[in-house]
Amino acid sequence: MGRTTTRRRVVRLGGPEPVERPDTLVVEEPLEIRVGGRPLAVTMRTPGHDMELAAGFLLSEGVVWDRGHVLSQRYCGGAADDGRNTYNVLDVDLDPALPVPDPSLERSFYTTSSCGVCGKASLDAVRTVARWRVDDDPVRVDRAALAGLPDALREAQRVFERTGGLHAAAVATAAGELLVVREDVGRHNAVDKALGHALLSGRVPLRGCVLLVSGRASFELAQKAWMAGVPVLAAVSAPSSLAVDVAVEAGMTLVGFLRGASMNVYSRGDRVRA
Amino acid sequence: MGRTTTRRRVVRLGGPEPVERPDTLVVEEPLEIRVGGRPLAVTMRTPGHDMELAAGFLLSEGVVWDRGHVLSQRYCGGAADDGRNTYNVLDVDLDPALPVPDPSLERSFYTTSSCGVCGKASLDAVRTVARWRVDDDPVRVDRAALAGLPDALREAQRVFERTGGLHAAAVATAAGELLVVREDVGRHNAVDKALGHALLSGRVPLRGCVLLVSGRASFELAQKAWMAGVPVLAAVSAPSSLAVDVAVEAGMTLVGFLRGASMNVYSRGDRVRA
Repeated sequence: MGRTTTRRRVVRLGGPEPVERPDTLVVEEPLEIRVGGRPLAVTMRTPGHDMELAAGFLLSEGVVWDRGHVLSQRYCGGAADDGRNTYNVLDVDLDPALPVPDPSLERSFYTTSSCGVCGKASLDAVRTVARWRVDDDPVRVDRAALAGLPDALREAQRVFERTGGLHAAAVATAAGELLVVREDVGRHNAVDKALGHALLSGRVPLRGCVLLVSGRASFELAQKAWMAGVPVLAAVSAPSSLAVDVAVEAGMTLVGFLRGASMNVYSRGDRVRA
Repeated sequence: MGRTTTRRRVVRLGGPEPVERPDTLVVEEPLEIRVGGRPLAVTMRTPGHDMELAAGFLLSEGVVWDRGHVLSQRYCGGAADDGRNTYNVLDVDLDPALPVPDPSLERSFYTTSSCGVCGKASLDAVRTVARWRVDDDPVRVDRAALAGLPDALREAQRVFERTGGLHAAAVATAAGELLVVREDVGRHNAVDKALGHALLSGRVPLRGCVLLVSGRASFELAQKAWMAGVPVLAAVSAPSSLAVDVAVEAGMTLVGFLRGASMNVYSRGDRVRA
């Protein structure tokens, strides 16, 4: 659909004279995810791989965990003012045996009845809903394979160089082979797209695999990795305290500041081989 | 409270031998925002300036728009398992004349009854709730003042250099003087803290001011700027298509890729003086 990038006129200042020229921008549009016709969530995303995005979102939230749970997905068309399909509303049909997801699901991890909300309570909530163990994953990853991932990711990112505006996420094998690369204006969306691809390919839980993210590792991204059964999470930039806590709790290997041959290992360093 | 950063053991790989050492990480913890005792939203944030964060969040969402609307804020204590105050739940008392905010408010901008959700519908929703005009703001900003902002921001960021994990946002005058700088693990939180500071200082609408963000300019950040009455939004990195659309719709000046003396001006370039 060619909606990943768009062009706008821009005035470039910096040289002796202002220069007006076209500039390539990353597209940001809302996507409403519906389940069985009921609106569940809206995310601002870059169009493309929307069905993977929806599948990955539902996986991250604990609504689905198997390819067979997603019966069908279709864009909901025809109701815009001008009768056009905006391709911004996606209706997902789930296995009717699954519980109907709660529309307040985005906050369900944190729902509290007391004043005790804290990082630990957030961890407890994730542990309760995570269906996969990752602490017992025997995978070993070569340092050299990890060190090669960021370059491989950048090579695979076609849009970034034109717009400077995209986050990327990839699922890779322990040998450093990229299985899927996805991009988005939102970091969580890029991860949802990559993990959704894995779910729809029947590869979840992602035992033996690495999830690579182009930026920082937050609680939310570590949580998503756990929900998909990923044993190794690698980030080009810094992790947060709670991302490290999730990794320690899950028995997940967390690598940060992955740049060239150097990297920081925050948990389960026994999986990284020299 | 010293909770902005924390230290963890990390194994640094890259030299001839692995080195185990302490590493400084940015703290990420949940903050639950309540209004009149009712839970409204949870955000994962870096502790510190929480009352500004809550005020800025409520401003961005159209719940409040004047300092006098926020009667009091207090941490809700004593109900954690161990009786400790987690300082992660903040109860805000609002002027009783204001409508009670809807707990589904985070999605209220996008609520649709049809399949027509799109960028334009999102713009329409923001225009409907925005209380301030920014298109008629006569401010002019010198290019040199804009060019100096990123360095001033970095100098003001004390935490970033130690952790590499923080986004920053600042409100500045048109002459390039920083009025407030705030940091957070979440980009939207950094902006909410800076704008919340302005609200609680009685400075909203921020006529004549610049909002500077350390990363990219998304729809959400442009929307927040409009809700605070900011006429100039400047980002160190790329804007998204919808951020440009918001700026054009609002009559806001949007500057991107602000690096050294060079910058891209996406809208209302008449406010930028050579």
